[in-house]
Amino acid sequence: MSFDTLEELLHPQAVAVVGASADPATAGYNFTRHLLGYGYRGRIYPVNPNRSEILGIKAYARLRDIPGPVSYVICCIPASGVLELLEDCSQKGVKAVHLFTARFSETGRQHATELENEILKQARRRGIRLIGPNCMGIYCPREGISFGYDFPREAGSVGAAFQSGGAATYLVHVASLRGIRFSKVISYGNALDYNESDFLNYFAHDPETKIILLYVEGVKDGQGFLNTLRHAASTKPVIIIKGGRGKSGTRAAASHTAALAGSIKVWETVIAQAGAIPARNVDEMVDFAVSFYFLPPITGLRVGIAGGGGGRNVLSADEAEEAGLDVIPLPTEIREEVRSKAPLIWDWIGNPVDASIMQNVSLNASDMLQMMASNKNFDLLIANISEDAPFDREEMTKYLKKEVEGYIKAKRESSKPLLVVVREKSLGIDDYDNWRWKLAGELRTQLIVANIPIYPSVGRAARAVKELAAYYQKRR
Amino acid sequence: MSFDTLEELLHPQAVAVVGASADPATAGYNFTRHLLGYGYRGRIYPVNPNRSEILGIKAYARLRDIPGPVSYVICCIPASGVLELLEDCSQKGVKAVHLFTARFSETGRQHATELENEILKQARRRGIRLIGPNCMGIYCPREGISFGYDFPREAGSVGAAFQSGGAATYLVHVASLRGIRFSKVISYGNALDYNESDFLNYFAHDPETKIILLYVEGVKDGQGFLNTLRHAASTKPVIIIKGGRGKSGTRAAASHTAALAGSIKVWETVIAQAGAIPARNVDEMVDFAVSFYFLPPITGLRVGIAGGGGGRNVLSADEAEEAGLDVIPLPTEIREEVRSKAPLIWDWIGNPVDASIMQNVSLNASDMLQMMASNKNFDLLIANISEDAPFDREEMTKYLKKEVEGYIKAKRESSKPLLVVVREKSLGIDDYDNWRWKLAGELRTQLIVANIPIYPSVGRAARAVKELAAYYQKRR
Repeated sequence: MSFDTLEELLHPQAVAVVGASADPATAGYNFTRHLLGYGYRGRIYPVNPNRSEILGIKAYARLRDIPGPVSYVICCIPASGVLELLEDCSQKGVKAVHLFTARFSETGRQHATELENEILKQARRRGIRLIGPNCMGIYCPREGISFGYDFPREAGSVGAAFQSGGAATYLVHVASLRGIRFSKVISYGNALDYNESDFLNYFAHDPETKIILLYVEGVKDGQGFLNTLRHAASTKPVIIIKGGRGKSGTRAAASHTAALAGSIKVWETVIAQAGAIPARNVDEMVDFAVSFYFLPPITGLRVGIAGGGGGRNVLSADEAEEAGLDVIPLPTEIREEVRSKAPLIWDWIGNPVDASIMQNVSLNASDMLQMMASNKNFDLLIANISEDAPFDREEMTKYLKKEVEGYIKAKRESSKPLLVVVREKSLGIDDYDNWRWKLAGELRTQLIVANIPIYPSVGRAARAVKELAAYYQKRR
Repeated sequence: MSFDTLEELLHPQAVAVVGASADPATAGYNFTRHLLGYGYRGRIYPVNPNRSEILGIKAYARLRDIPGPVSYVICCIPASGVLELLEDCSQKGVKAVHLFTARFSETGRQHATELENEILKQARRRGIRLIGPNCMGIYCPREGISFGYDFPREAGSVGAAFQSGGAATYLVHVASLRGIRFSKVISYGNALDYNESDFLNYFAHDPETKIILLYVEGVKDGQGFLNTLRHAASTKPVIIIKGGRGKSGTRAAASHTAALAGSIKVWETVIAQAGAIPARNVDEMVDFAVSFYFLPPITGLRVGIAGGGGGRNVLSADEAEEAGLDVIPLPTEIREEVRSKAPLIWDWIGNPVDASIMQNVSLNASDMLQMMASNKNFDLLIANISEDAPFDREEMTKYLKKEVEGYIKAKRESSKPLLVVVREKSLGIDDYDNWRWKLAGELRTQLIVANIPIYPSVGRAARAVKELAAYYQKRR
């Protein structure tokens, strides 16, 4: 397996979009627009026999008409034209082709599967590597290459290889809203040539990648994948979603990427033995990734929780415990400190810290969180943002901003992991202007800027940090 | 147990806020402001010895100074003043007092518990009923009474009794964003007098209430509660969260509402035997409530899924199956219809319907959903909104609006339950202006206006509709 070509492929000198188009309803338009919009610095060559210009750039009738060298081709033409294109690629010295083109083996049709096989054979013979077919290809922010709208332009340390382009797009959207940035995201579809093992191995060796995410519907070579996974997971956290777990999902996976989905039990064994972390869906994967992205390695599970009102605290304690965390009682030394600072509540306050009983005392929930942050009995901290406290706009804004400043202070002054819960909402169109939900957005941004991971619920935060601790416990 | 007083209490002729205040940081301010803001039509009497006027209304030094009759008192003064207030209430003929006032038995302190007991004794002797202490009291939109900001002014058919005011506030916020409206929501805290059984019984008989939600940390009389629950659940769906399930949650519940939380196993048995539905947290409760609120009774579990791209479909199928739904293959008659209308994909398309393979054919995902809606093999339908499709603003808007119109058409023309998934996001402050997330908000509003329930994920939709079917299967 050659890293050079995959590395080159992710950093191409010149890109041709074959099937480029001026019609915004087409992929040929979008891929061209993304190269321009995300600031790709190499040469961009739209290829379209019917246009001399696309999105302001000179277009070429055929690949072979392009004057300079082309290292990477994004192919958006119908399946029937791919074999001829490979001939042209060969002449132009193209090293790699991303086949956005679909309707191959995933259709379940014999002639389409035969064509797919012939494409692989021709590509091999001509020394051309393939991503796809039936996929969105590459998002590499450092290079200015993207397959989706509203992806971050800044790069980060998460690498992802996804058999689904839609799931990859969703991943980038939700993860980036939670503060994650990516080294490279690759949507690889039917995995005709480059497959999950190649990408996994690449990410394991890629110095820009610190966390690896995989969405696989099937693997080409079980034993090879297991070996690669074992190696990758020994160097970096690897989080894997298996799509196609049940009978209908397996059927759907076959018609999506022609994957022969294996039994979920075999998969779970593979994943656990290899030291990787299974996730059930993209939301859970993002929760886990957020904890690895923002938090230091931990092994202890004693959690301090602060910020919610009564009922929220009770359920926070329940959910943290059900996730496997240890919600310990407030240590004596903190109780003594509260006795001197807030004698009205010292014997009553506990862990979780009930913010609703702290009115008219000189401490707030974030003061308590700071005490827990500097107390040796706690391994990690969870704070609840209470946008449901019974205050009006001015009071609520004052109250929550002070809390968040306190949480940011706690995070700055302590090495302990701090997770903050800011709940998501099903906003209707008029709710986007509501100060309450916008305030939540303001606090989310502040927290992310301070490198604090945010979660939509205590249960999800607790399960994510439990995976983090389990990972480092295994490695200890 | 008297319904008359509780009914009167929820529809008071005149309300006094004792401890009313002009300081926005206080509950005495908020309760007064809510009576004005939500349009309470009876007389409002702020009581405060130091002010002649609060929020533009004449204030009285003492309750007994009020000229007219008072039926309901919201008490926001410190615990030490409550016994004297009860004397005044007795003189004024007050029927019920909501004790927002806290710091009683929940502090764990003996003298506070003794005072609480004495308050109950005095109230009983004087024929005054109590809600609380240590609670937010009543939200009754039809009467214009509220304990929180941003609650809907319109009434609906969900009744809720919550031992936690913060959890009740969160409930009203998230449920109303999902289209639910309430008959009455009662936050009842320490349950000194009126308790969970009283409210449950009231809601069971209340013609305005069709679905009952309970959040309990402990019950006063296990056998009585079980009898009441059995009766209530035989008339209406009852969804219950038990707070204080683990050792730390139990500890937190004691210091929150002085509840002696029972073992979760006992609770689950009680709840199941009585025909009620347990939920683990408020988000799950809202998911379940949304399905009962919007959907017709169903017993079948054969689901048709449409709208997502490849990977999302695969995971949708997995999660639906894991929740207990039956994702059946596409029936022959639908396949034949597709053959005539979209021959390019007829042999390839399946259930879930992969929207990403439907470009350049004359059918879209909502057309397929409409076919499933009128096909006898399907019991229910789930549609995915794909805000992650790889289109630019104009194309995406056109695409999703057409989809949603098709879903609304399917819902109008069929009696089958339709659930639509519109994912929630952790928006930062700048993301509130992003057209993509605003478009999601626009579609949510359209769907809710069309009486279609929305869910943040397929897994949550599937689990919610499974509970709905299980409820009606038991009753069949």
